[in-house]
Amino acid sequence: MAADENTVYVGKKGVMSYVLAVVTQFNRGTNQVQIKARGRAISRAVDVAEIVRNRFVTEAQVKDIAISTEELNDQKEKEPTKVSAIEITLAK
Amino acid sequence: MAADENTVYVGKKGVMSYVLAVVTQFNRGTNQVQIKARGRAISRAVDVAEIVRNRFVTEAQVKDIAISTEELNDQKEKEPTKVSAIEITLAK
Repeated sequence: MAADENTVYVGKKGVMSYVLAVVTQFNRGTNQVQIKARGRAISRAVDVAEIVRNRFVTEAQVKDIAISTEELNDQKEKEPTKVSAIEITLAK
Repeated sequence: MAADENTVYVGKKGVMSYVLAVVTQFNRGTNQVQIKARGRAISRAVDVAEIVRNRFVTEAQVKDIAISTEELNDQKEKEPTKVSAIEITLAK
């Protein structure tokens, strides 16, 4: 999917891993990258966006930020677990 | 300051403390509440906004989300520490 190619999912690795992934996307010629994260990784996603924008791709701007609630179906639990999510769109 | 009265700063307490603070602001008649957080508390701020919006003040919507970088002047360090920040505006 074209949309996924421009998306970086932020998880538990170090911040700079994801910064590098975003910068690589921009260097390949794309004008827009989406940074997605859930739960505790949300803070890290904001760090990634800020570091990319301030240090590496200074012409990139925050085009949009959306927050939402996702349901995780954990097989051990009867009720689905709810987790917050963020989607930050950087564009230049 | 009028702006501060409608602002809830999210820190290290449990999520529901801040949810209650935001709901209280809305119940006092304000139509707009700002939720602010820095660093690791950013994830919690998103949780607060999502729980308020989905469970307690269902007519409230996310009006704006801004991210930024703040510099903390720690007296022990010569260089200021940089920390990411978020500001979520809920309005009904």
